[in-house]
Amino acid sequence: MAKMTFRYGAVSSAKTLNLLAVAHQVERQGKRVVVMKPALDTRDGPRTVASRAGLDREADVVLTEDTDLAADDYRGAACILVDEAQFLSAHVVEQLRELTRSAGVTVFAYGLRTDFRGRLFEGSRRLLELADSIEEVKTSCALCDRKAVFNQRLLAGRPVTEGPAVQLGGDESYRGVCYDHLGSGT
Amino acid sequence: MAKMTFRYGAVSSAKTLNLLAVAHQVERQGKRVVVMKPALDTRDGPRTVASRAGLDREADVVLTEDTDLAADDYRGAACILVDEAQFLSAHVVEQLRELTRSAGVTVFAYGLRTDFRGRLFEGSRRLLELADSIEEVKTSCALCDRKAVFNQRLLAGRPVTEGPAVQLGGDESYRGVCYDHLGSGT
Amino acid sequence: MAKMTFRYGAVSSAKTLNLLAVAHQVERQGKRVVVMKPALDTRDGPRTVASRAGLDREADVVLTEDTDLAADDYRGAACILVDEAQFLSAHVVEQLRELTRSAGVTVFAYGLRTDFRGRLFEGSRRLLELADSIEEVKTSCALCDRKAVFNQRLLAGRPVTEGPAVQLGGDESYRGVCYDHLGSGT
Amino acid sequence: MAKMTFRYGAVSSAKTLNLLAVAHQVERQGKRVVVMKPALDTRDGPRTVASRAGLDREADVVLTEDTDLAADDYRGAACILVDEAQFLSAHVVEQLRELTRSAGVTVFAYGLRTDFRGRLFEGSRRLLELADSIEEVKTSCALCDRKAVFNQRLLAGRPVTEGPAVQLGGDESYRGVCYDHLGSGT
Repeated sequence: MAKMTFRYGAVSSAKTLNLLAVAHQVERQGKRVVVMKPALDTRDGPRTVASRAGLDREADVVLTEDTDLAADDYRGAACILVDEAQFLSAHVVEQLRELTRSAGVTVFAYGLRTDFRGRLFEGSRRLLELADSIEEVKTSCALCDRKAVFNQRLLAGRPVTEGPAVQLGGDESYRGVCYDHLGSGT
Repeated sequence: MAKMTFRYGAVSSAKTLNLLAVAHQVERQGKRVVVMKPALDTRDGPRTVASRAGLDREADVVLTEDTDLAADDYRGAACILVDEAQFLSAHVVEQLRELTRSAGVTVFAYGLRTDFRGRLFEGSRRLLELADSIEEVKTSCALCDRKAVFNQRLLAGRPVTEGPAVQLGGDESYRGVCYDHLGSGT
Repeated sequence: MAKMTFRYGAVSSAKTLNLLAVAHQVERQGKRVVVMKPALDTRDGPRTVASRAGLDREADVVLTEDTDLAADDYRGAACILVDEAQFLSAHVVEQLRELTRSAGVTVFAYGLRTDFRGRLFEGSRRLLELADSIEEVKTSCALCDRKAVFNQRLLAGRPVTEGPAVQLGGDESYRGVCYDHLGSGT
Repeated sequence: MAKMTFRYGAVSSAKTLNLLAVAHQVERQGKRVVVMKPALDTRDGPRTVASRAGLDREADVVLTEDTDLAADDYRGAACILVDEAQFLSAHVVEQLRELTRSAGVTVFAYGLRTDFRGRLFEGSRRLLELADSIEEVKTSCALCDRKAVFNQRLLAGRPVTEGPAVQLGGDESYRGVCYDHLGSGT
């Protein structure tokens, strides 16, 4: 049976670059890779998976809340790579989990652990429940040299603590911080 | 600032023995350790922290849903060790998280990830949201040589999939299984 | 193919207790475990594998420098657990590595990374070269709250930096320290 | 005190891309990064640090066997990132280790664990002895879906087992394989 791994990390921890590197490497070995992303993530266009550091590629599959995934479509693939997996529905995470058994395909899902209020996203929660392995993609706090653990939302450069859980944004809107800097906010 | 670590593992992964070993070692170094457990876990008596492999000790603090933890009581301790942390309330997890900052004390919380239906416990959920590090205590599937990821509840030796999330029990009631054996049940 | 894992940790990191916990748990699942130790480790008697925290058991196999291990003797075992693996010869590590393929048996080798001068032992070196996975059994520095990384040898309570690489001893002779306390020695 | 981490991985595990991602991210936070590489690695030019996946940058420091590193030059930097660290001399690894204390700078060294004969390189050996943390950058075997652990040298597409330990080369000369495929060679 193949494995499902959740690779979580704070904002700007190069999760997408990590995903693109895996895709690149597996394809160079002559194996088939399937890249997926949730429809909710439209920052770089509906199908584009783009790293801030400069690489990108098109997703093979764009996932909505109720996408069904058929084993026959993925049998023989070396792995499925999912970007921004915190935005997946529980239903889709369960479908991916089942593919590790029904299609024998390895799944790597990359995503945030928590939203700006420190709460699991629906996709992260289900991945933390079902994944065989939980691995961290580390990055440092924007304000010191400790590890970033939380994702702070910014408005005009100041931390905010109210608003919707999902609100797309880049470096101007989010930064990774440690617990100490989460509290003090500066 | 001190760190909070969540060490999760399936049933029978020797989490408690691991905790007792840390307590033993830190005390041998002449440092102060505080052992805590939730009041909900009464299997071995209200205060006892006992490993199936044969070691045990009394908890220093028994935690209820609304226990408040004062920084002054823990300053100077090398670490707080919490057993059966899946049973903690979100409130207590938040108190422990705050102690890493206010009292500068390291926290290691040991517990299950999910209940027998594959859902996070309240304590596990909050720990997964707030911990600086998430580490796995590994054990093998009761039915094969893969890693155990899920906790199957048994009734008269057969897996059950309905019932309350929390129901105390030992080896006769729970076993750790991989995803494959979770589904097939045998 | 089964895997070989090297679980390294500084002195007093409860490696042996960890090994005994795995043995206990796997046997409770009705599977066969084989416990091995090097003949060089005679502290608790020629065959005894004993944890400072209070548990012990007899080793099934005592390994000398040139022990050969036959696949037929281990086929069907769930795992081989090796204590004090830093003292293994390169030859024996290679035999264990080969058993993962020839007998399909999982190997967990527990041991120190380096001697008191910060140099790999023969067994550790070969395990670091051949293991599929390298995992750390963590413990804290005897002199502060950071992680212990080095093994300091003591004579009458003072660190020494000269002498033979292998010299058996307990808590009075060794302590785990961080890099900072390795250098200053106090 | 700052930490030294050795991030090892088989050939083509995207170690350099990982390093470039960290450099990119830390600089975006307005912090200073120092990128180093050994003089021995001349594949992409004397100073260039280049990832197969498409990113590159110039190294700030090119290290020879006997380079000395002065604390004053690195104080205030957020981290030092070293590419192809298996080629470092023991002397340079010791200098880097000392900088974590004398300059308070974090060090991430990326490199191979072993050469094509399964032996530690000089730099890898000293890093495995002195690093606070040992982390794996994973990639899959070129010939199956297991993890790559060994680096096989190729000549006209066929594995070779004799020759010098150090011989620069790209995908046509090396591939990462699991233990099973190391032995069979095909």
